[in-house]
Amino acid sequence: MKVEIGHGSGGKLTKELIDRVFLKYFDFPELKSLQDATVLPVEGEKIGITTDSYVIRPLFFPGGNIGKLSICGTINDLTVSGNVPLYVSVGFIIEEGTDFEILEKIAESMAETAVKSNVKIVAGDTKVVERGKCDGVYINTTGVGKNVRNLSPLNAREGDVVIVTGFIGDHGIAISLAREEFDVETGVLSDCAPLNSLLVPLFEIPTLRWMRDPTRGGLATVLIEFSESSGLGVKLYEDKIPVREEVRFVCDMLGYDPLYLANEGKAVIVVGREDAEKTLEILKSHELGKNAEIIGEVTGDGSVQLITSIGGVRRLELLEEDPLPRIC
Amino acid sequence: MKVEIGHGSGGKLTKELIDRVFLKYFDFPELKSLQDATVLPVEGEKIGITTDSYVIRPLFFPGGNIGKLSICGTINDLTVSGNVPLYVSVGFIIEEGTDFEILEKIAESMAETAVKSNVKIVAGDTKVVERGKCDGVYINTTGVGKNVRNLSPLNAREGDVVIVTGFIGDHGIAISLAREEFDVETGVLSDCAPLNSLLVPLFEIPTLRWMRDPTRGGLATVLIEFSESSGLGVKLYEDKIPVREEVRFVCDMLGYDPLYLANEGKAVIVVGREDAEKTLEILKSHELGKNAEIIGEVTGDGSVQLITSIGGVRRLELLEEDPLPRIC
Repeated sequence: MKVEIGHGSGGKLTKELIDRVFLKYFDFPELKSLQDATVLPVEGEKIGITTDSYVIRPLFFPGGNIGKLSICGTINDLTVSGNVPLYVSVGFIIEEGTDFEILEKIAESMAETAVKSNVKIVAGDTKVVERGKCDGVYINTTGVGKNVRNLSPLNAREGDVVIVTGFIGDHGIAISLAREEFDVETGVLSDCAPLNSLLVPLFEIPTLRWMRDPTRGGLATVLIEFSESSGLGVKLYEDKIPVREEVRFVCDMLGYDPLYLANEGKAVIVVGREDAEKTLEILKSHELGKNAEIIGEVTGDGSVQLITSIGGVRRLELLEEDPLPRIC
Repeated sequence: MKVEIGHGSGGKLTKELIDRVFLKYFDFPELKSLQDATVLPVEGEKIGITTDSYVIRPLFFPGGNIGKLSICGTINDLTVSGNVPLYVSVGFIIEEGTDFEILEKIAESMAETAVKSNVKIVAGDTKVVERGKCDGVYINTTGVGKNVRNLSPLNAREGDVVIVTGFIGDHGIAISLAREEFDVETGVLSDCAPLNSLLVPLFEIPTLRWMRDPTRGGLATVLIEFSESSGLGVKLYEDKIPVREEVRFVCDMLGYDPLYLANEGKAVIVVGREDAEKTLEILKSHELGKNAEIIGEVTGDGSVQLITSIGGVRRLELLEEDPLPRIC
């Protein structure tokens, strides 16, 4: 069965699409009220809000799909900003002619990821657009969490430590190769994962300054933004940055830079030096953080410097153009 | 200047797009932190959440544009569900080649509508897709409000009164004619408007049961959904339903039914009979409610019946297919 334009009508067919595809998997009582807005309890005095649209190709890739990605991305954006993720809304823009089966697989993995991460899908919307518009499905996810920590580049101080939670670049390579523009097989999976169970325990670390998930633009881009926002700099040690052999190999071959490759299940963390070991210990006790490493330190010089394996210094800059590979 | 694929890169060009188009108009300090998630205060123990994607053509139409529409829609969904709207997130999917000027006009009217309605734009995201994907721009807006009333079809009782806040069908006709598929001029403007200043005062009405903004699918569809959810019915008096002469004229000519036409600045309200006059009085004291009318009553029979001007009875049903005209 395929999606028709009428499935976006707001009438019977829309109801059928929602029931057969979305409510079948999204088993959250809050969602099932199907009112214009969902009413939800919040504890505490502050919430965190984040929004993201996902427009990726292909919809399915090694290690994930657009649905899992959209839930992970929103959970991760909330978490790195000091919030415990609670609620996610989902907005689908669906291309006429898309198989129900594809949508079901996407919805199923969204629900699975949400349930596993203790997050509820509480509001939704579906629109249908004509054939050729949108690549199958675009998804917007917006998340709300309970704010626990005030994390900001402005908290950072010279001498703080920069940690990454594991291998970088896997997602960028997995997506790039999944496009079949190149005939390369590596077995590299996207690292797409919800990071709240890994990172929320760090909210207890007194000198936790700032966290970020290095998605579009990669590790280099988020550290440059950190530097611009804080007025501080970062010194990175190239040989400390965890990059898989296979990722390095593809980068060499295709001219990518792993520092600019997207990640979907990693975080960069800045903590006070006195809490660095404790932070690493917490991270390494979790499956998603077992390859965490201290990769650098915060400096006073206002730029991001990479100390290369052979001892050279390379200043990292924001890319003018699309980072390669284009992943969204 | 036109949007290029590189404006979606997450690098320098994306920053330029965000600065030049969005931050120029979205003058909300909360948004300017530009972190992955925005931290916001909430009062009270419950919040309302709603999400909607806007995929309309044309982007500009008499009485509004996709940007104004997206802010109004989210404000209205929150309000009719018993919430005071506070915060809106905005997600843009932009087609390569779109003029910056078009985006600026859209952003400007979003900001204007938000400010006028006392709502803050607090989080955002931009993605760029290739030429031909998406009609210029798709917008997702997700809103969070402070929950004040628990409104639900389940609150309704036989004998309650059904009120509409003004003329129906204007938006559907304005959009349909703006597509220039027909050579008809009527001067009908979309009713696109934020309804929180009109409807929040009704939260004081003790017997306020349920409200809804009859957008996609129109008055008939929302009342049928009300009937299905409540197990009750509705008797509507055709000659009490406010429809502009020009709208009636176009409907007759093109075979549309005003009861199924979209509205973007109207609400249907169910209140106890004892509070009907008070409700009308509050509505009529506001510019957006001056044409409010009692159009029917809640019955026990489980269906929506239209009592026609000549005394006949017509049972209203959910449309199988797209309502005409297709407006999103």
